[in-house]
Amino acid sequence: MTTPNWRHKDLLDTKDFSPSEILYLLDMAAQFEEINTRPVKKVPTLRGKGVVLFFAEPSTRTKTSFDIASKRLSADTFSLTTSGSSLSKGESLKDTALTLEAMAPDIIVIRHSSSGAAAFLAQRLACSVVNAGDGWHAHPTQALLDAYVLRKHWQGEIQGKTLTILGDITHSRVARSNIHLLTQLGVTVRLFGPRTLLPRGVHNWPVTVCGSMDEAVKDTDAVMCLRLQLERQQAGLLPALSEYGSSFCFQQKHLDLAAPGAPVLHPGPINRGLEISSAIADAPQSRILDQVAAGVAVRMAILFTLGMRNV
Amino acid sequence: MTTPNWRHKDLLDTKDFSPSEILYLLDMAAQFEEINTRPVKKVPTLRGKGVVLFFAEPSTRTKTSFDIASKRLSADTFSLTTSGSSLSKGESLKDTALTLEAMAPDIIVIRHSSSGAAAFLAQRLACSVVNAGDGWHAHPTQALLDAYVLRKHWQGEIQGKTLTILGDITHSRVARSNIHLLTQLGVTVRLFGPRTLLPRGVHNWPVTVCGSMDEAVKDTDAVMCLRLQLERQQAGLLPALSEYGSSFCFQQKHLDLAAPGAPVLHPGPINRGLEISSAIADAPQSRILDQVAAGVAVRMAILFTLGMRNV
Amino acid sequence: MTTPNWRHKDLLDTKDFSPSEILYLLDMAAQFEEINTRPVKKVPTLRGKGVVLFFAEPSTRTKTSFDIASKRLSADTFSLTTSGSSLSKGESLKDTALTLEAMAPDIIVIRHSSSGAAAFLAQRLACSVVNAGDGWHAHPTQALLDAYVLRKHWQGEIQGKTLTILGDITHSRVARSNIHLLTQLGVTVRLFGPRTLLPRGVHNWPVTVCGSMDEAVKDTDAVMCLRLQLERQQAGLLPALSEYGSSFCFQQKHLDLAAPGAPVLHPGPINRGLEISSAIADAPQSRILDQVAAGVAVRMAILFTLGMRNV
Repeated sequence: MTTPNWRHKDLLDTKDFSPSEILYLLDMAAQFEEINTRPVKKVPTLRGKGVVLFFAEPSTRTKTSFDIASKRLSADTFSLTTSGSSLSKGESLKDTALTLEAMAPDIIVIRHSSSGAAAFLAQRLACSVVNAGDGWHAHPTQALLDAYVLRKHWQGEIQGKTLTILGDITHSRVARSNIHLLTQLGVTVRLFGPRTLLPRGVHNWPVTVCGSMDEAVKDTDAVMCLRLQLERQQAGLLPALSEYGSSFCFQQKHLDLAAPGAPVLHPGPINRGLEISSAIADAPQSRILDQVAAGVAVRMAILFTLGMRNV
Repeated sequence: MTTPNWRHKDLLDTKDFSPSEILYLLDMAAQFEEINTRPVKKVPTLRGKGVVLFFAEPSTRTKTSFDIASKRLSADTFSLTTSGSSLSKGESLKDTALTLEAMAPDIIVIRHSSSGAAAFLAQRLACSVVNAGDGWHAHPTQALLDAYVLRKHWQGEIQGKTLTILGDITHSRVARSNIHLLTQLGVTVRLFGPRTLLPRGVHNWPVTVCGSMDEAVKDTDAVMCLRLQLERQQAGLLPALSEYGSSFCFQQKHLDLAAPGAPVLHPGPINRGLEISSAIADAPQSRILDQVAAGVAVRMAILFTLGMRNV
Repeated sequence: MTTPNWRHKDLLDTKDFSPSEILYLLDMAAQFEEINTRPVKKVPTLRGKGVVLFFAEPSTRTKTSFDIASKRLSADTFSLTTSGSSLSKGESLKDTALTLEAMAPDIIVIRHSSSGAAAFLAQRLACSVVNAGDGWHAHPTQALLDAYVLRKHWQGEIQGKTLTILGDITHSRVARSNIHLLTQLGVTVRLFGPRTLLPRGVHNWPVTVCGSMDEAVKDTDAVMCLRLQLERQQAGLLPALSEYGSSFCFQQKHLDLAAPGAPVLHPGPINRGLEISSAIADAPQSRILDQVAAGVAVRMAILFTLGMRNV
């Protein structure tokens, strides 16, 4: 594997990358996916490199995915969570990050509840920063793994396809990053969700906002259900959960309207029966576990590319 | 070290193994115990393999023991605890496990408060599952390490010996797993504890239920004290703790009734003065720290055996 | 790198070491600091060794620093925090430590809220114990890294210099360890802080207690600000925080009184505007991030020295 002429110190937002750079990362991820099927899934590429996993919001899959990706490249990882960190002593994010950098890691992966947190750090740190989700803003590694799964399903023919995104768009960094990345690759994106969970200004986005579930999924080439954050209900943005499920839960009758074989994605963790029916989550067309597997490969590609910059 | 014709994907319960399989694991553990006395306690056997430590109940010794065992075999480990995991976001155990498996670990070690949790996962996952304690049901690695310590103490002559288990039998997965495994190896097991903490149906178990501490320990070849879960008291199953201690705490006067040199075991962590006297815990006949040391060796044997299946 | 005739099993307190031993550790740290500037910051020295990081108090920088130091030496690390440990089940510190030792680690690093906790364990354990901070008592690795930074700044000429320590002396293990270590190396130490935060008996210490900030910093060769623990206020030991800041916050006007170029240290995490002004924390004379970087090198020197004892 060879590194291209990679000019980016950080991975903050899908908006920072050209289509050819994105395709480069996806191609490299395909090579790492192959490694992940071997009995011994480890390469010595980043031996002696250090990756800090700084998760100021709870996470299973993303943190573990980065941890596995790092160690499969032979890097060492160092975990910080809010509860165990000086943030709980009132230290500012900037001071925590400068402190971490002073220990000379090669890459800091950060998840934070504030939009812009990763970019804020990247400007102040010499080491590479990877955004593992910042507020409602962006989740670029999720968008890359989703693109990876869709491209593989469509056998490389992304251009001209249609993706339907369902659910809570307003609070979703997954939706924002996917919309940007996939429209850049030539995908038409449709949105549908409760009016209270559509962002202001969405009509200026490069998407089609649909008026009904049926309209949104009719003949679509792929469906992405978003996780409903249950705490939105307390904020008065949702009806009763049972009512939400009956109006907005993606089910077989909706999938029947989509193009034959259309894959169904969800970033997880799923609320069965709320934003997606349990049957669909387990159906052959579900790509939820493929997304998880792709996540490790895509993150290996990212860590590899950033980690090899200064070798 | 060579792997036998091992047919088990998982380690869920001592009931799944024949006596010869158990003795095979104990023999292999003896080899690993030797490695653990070397200045460099590491072998490259599982290099590149991944072990997920998924502990949905707090644990010091068992989790650390598996972590050390894994790394001494050169495997990488990935820790998940409930508080840091998607379980706190309401994800089902099954979905968490499927997600973990999609990241292609080789072995998932799980501790969970629900009896049957490990078996539930093992049926649904292609990777190996190791039960590190599930509810009141089973704790097979504890039973194996106890058998290891007893066999070593008895210099291999287990058949015909007598073990007395004291304390809260009802809620003890340690007791259940030990009773099954040791009776299978030819040990006679006696039980004694408060009537409120003896399980219904115990008279159908292959054990002798004793009416007094003196009867239970008279001429016994080994004593195993169980940890008293202090939360049982709130459930009304216990008298005042001071009263419990005076009636059921294992002390020197009881040990004096046992066979000369009889070893004393306890799975830890101990409540000094409650289920075991402080003097006994620190006495030469105490095998509590030997159990901890044996735990690393036994878990190395298990991880090695399961991890080598698909090489 | 060669190991000297090192007679200490543990690193508990700066009082245990002669000046020549301290200088030996600082010289070794300088070699490790060089390694930490390489693209691949890893040496195989402690390959196969195990380091337990047992932090019973929250910590970002110290725990991560030891973790990074261990892994750069190729040791394996095992983390225990109070919330995830048996201490939350009521096990005594001694029993937890004996249990850990039975798993045969090479070094246990401990932070604990009780003064003397590390020494208590060191007496009972055969493996090496490193004190990462015990109550108000000692924080020897912090004092060593501070000495490292000062010695480097002064180009090796420590003898005859003056250091001013500002803030909450009473509750500061950092102050106690620094005072001992630096006076031993020939540094004159001045103290200044609120009267309520000066320890009883301080007039018997080998320091000068100053009556004003100006007196304390006048012509001093270096300044060390201590972190103010905000919980001291609830204990009635502090005025309102705004009042504290206006009376005791170290600012440019104070630094102007010090010797030209005098470095400013702080163990972190900092409360900007409380014990140190934000401008000073970010000023060129601030050595706060150098302290963090030195911390990794100093801890590598310590772990190396202790870890090579029995090879």
